[in-house]
Amino acid sequence: MKRNVFIAIIASIVAFAVIIPNCRAQSRRDKEQTYVLKTPYAVEKITPPQGKKIKNVILMIGDGMSLMHVYSAWTANRGHLWLDNCQTVGLSKTYCANKLITDSGAGGTALATGHKTNYHMVGVDPEGRPLESLCKLANKKGLSSGVAVTCRLWDATPADFCCHNTDRDAEAAIVTDYVNCDVDYVFGGGSKLFENREDGRDLFKELRDKGYQTPRSWEELAGIQKGKVFCVTDTVDTPLPAERGDLLARASMKAIELLNQNPQGFFLMIEGSQLDDYGHFNDLDLLMQETHDFDRTVGRVMQWAAQDGETLVVVTADHETGGLTLVDGDLDEGRIVCKFSTGGHSGVMVPVYSFGPGCENFTGIFENTDVMKKIKTLMGL
Amino acid sequence: MKRNVFIAIIASIVAFAVIIPNCRAQSRRDKEQTYVLKTPYAVEKITPPQGKKIKNVILMIGDGMSLMHVYSAWTANRGHLWLDNCQTVGLSKTYCANKLITDSGAGGTALATGHKTNYHMVGVDPEGRPLESLCKLANKKGLSSGVAVTCRLWDATPADFCCHNTDRDAEAAIVTDYVNCDVDYVFGGGSKLFENREDGRDLFKELRDKGYQTPRSWEELAGIQKGKVFCVTDTVDTPLPAERGDLLARASMKAIELLNQNPQGFFLMIEGSQLDDYGHFNDLDLLMQETHDFDRTVGRVMQWAAQDGETLVVVTADHETGGLTLVDGDLDEGRIVCKFSTGGHSGVMVPVYSFGPGCENFTGIFENTDVMKKIKTLMGL
Repeated sequence: MKRNVFIAIIASIVAFAVIIPNCRAQSRRDKEQTYVLKTPYAVEKITPPQGKKIKNVILMIGDGMSLMHVYSAWTANRGHLWLDNCQTVGLSKTYCANKLITDSGAGGTALATGHKTNYHMVGVDPEGRPLESLCKLANKKGLSSGVAVTCRLWDATPADFCCHNTDRDAEAAIVTDYVNCDVDYVFGGGSKLFENREDGRDLFKELRDKGYQTPRSWEELAGIQKGKVFCVTDTVDTPLPAERGDLLARASMKAIELLNQNPQGFFLMIEGSQLDDYGHFNDLDLLMQETHDFDRTVGRVMQWAAQDGETLVVVTADHETGGLTLVDGDLDEGRIVCKFSTGGHSGVMVPVYSFGPGCENFTGIFENTDVMKKIKTLMGL
Repeated sequence: MKRNVFIAIIASIVAFAVIIPNCRAQSRRDKEQTYVLKTPYAVEKITPPQGKKIKNVILMIGDGMSLMHVYSAWTANRGHLWLDNCQTVGLSKTYCANKLITDSGAGGTALATGHKTNYHMVGVDPEGRPLESLCKLANKKGLSSGVAVTCRLWDATPADFCCHNTDRDAEAAIVTDYVNCDVDYVFGGGSKLFENREDGRDLFKELRDKGYQTPRSWEELAGIQKGKVFCVTDTVDTPLPAERGDLLARASMKAIELLNQNPQGFFLMIEGSQLDDYGHFNDLDLLMQETHDFDRTVGRVMQWAAQDGETLVVVTADHETGGLTLVDGDLDEGRIVCKFSTGGHSGVMVPVYSFGPGCENFTGIFENTDVMKKIKTLMGL
């Protein structure tokens, strides 16, 4: 009986956690929302490197970040984004194996593995067979690999690169795959499914047994100078952008610092994870905060890549979320007036912005799976 | 008194012509509309030319055609568009001198002249000074120039390339500029402001005095083998796509046939004019018909350019119209479910799709004015 009450309480909490944002989104749908970025941030022009050698690739994914999100964020920041430093632009077709409008499971699997799979699947083909991601391929060739996200690690995008499941909702099962994924650097949230698990496993302990360091805060992570890292800072997602500051940029630069110790090179995936959530919630304010946080991270990464000279940076998305339209605004005031058309994803190509050696391969119109295939070829994986 | 009654009747007709579509658009706004392309059209893969020499440039403008329009049209045609043959993609920032969200006046002026101007202005700078368009610059260098559109010729986009006015609504005055524009080939609608004018001028006669042939139908135009042409086929716009068939493609290929007789080369602007109108009316059916008509014209032009080998084709838009979102659909069935967020334009970058020699200059993120500047440089104008 006690167990039933517990289940009922948990079910209610989950229901409210889903229903309340959805109701809020519903009430916001198809209505104008105004956002003003009070304090715009400075953006610099970055001189692209001249060399042709590609040692490292950093793939940056803005979850649900379409052209409309980028132009809205650009307007709010008075006509400046770090992303403007990209040298080439391409367009990626995001449909998945069994649906026109994909989710992050199938969309991220395409970017991670080069295969179109079914809606809601992570890191497997439509028949459920595990697929090798760019992280795995990099490791097999002696390169290092990493993943840095702001969301819980069972969320689809990081899972697409490290885990394998036909159902993205099988969260407790999905995270167990991290133990054997061999990715050299993982940063994200979601500790509640790594410890105190129903099945009694302590995944942090298992990761340590595999040779990982498992810092549980930015402060702990910051002190690490070498070796494999699996850092989970929060119970579920990392805090809101206003609270966490430049955590994504710091976690990304730490990843680069550690992975770059491998003379063979590295592959790193960085995700601005929660653009998608705030697109779903039709929350323009938080959506812009996340987009600007992601853009500032893009800036830090591009600045490092420009110095390094042998790193290709590819910035894209898995799909669009929210059906965002910028219906009015003012560049001088940083004011945007937007409408959301849906609480789900919409069907549209997403831009692929590239910077650094090899970027000329990422223009034109291509499949989302080609993003992975091009990176694989350029890295010789 | 008679004159007042006449004015009242005309005013009523105009009012209804504006009000009825607007009311229809209002009733469609923010609601799902479904469209199925019953008979998809075949699309071929075009092999790009290998040479580097640029003799001719054809700039194709889908008025109001954003990424969402293209992906919706691509889905309806079962995942095929001629536009997919583009070799490079760039993104163009469409804001004008005094507004974030531009109109076709300022948006087209940027593409035609390389200058940002004020909302509602055509072919002039913000101070009202006439600007030289790519057509004029081509003529000054001994190349030929042309304009082919499906709309009335006083509409903003063709006027941006041939006329100069601070107010795009000064329609009767705008069309008089065509008499002195020196453009070698003009095709479009709008005869009612060329003849039986209030000021008594017969612009067709004036054009003939300048050496133009003035055919008034496709049949008459088809028989012309050389010389300057000013062809106006309809009182206002050309008929709906289902009625006019491939008129835009035919008029474009005729332009190429005549302009290509100049060994120095040519600049030609082709517009899919009425995507914008049906975006304003939030009419998905007609919008898709126009988009597919424009795409088939792109295909015909790219096929010719591939054969020619010295022609750069640049396809873009002046802005987005309608705030279109594809919220559901099916690639196999060619079914799309879309919503419009506005009866006006929205703020977003528009893609620039290029094919042929020099296309590598049109990737990355740039201003809409850079489209003209790049063409000017590549053609040596």
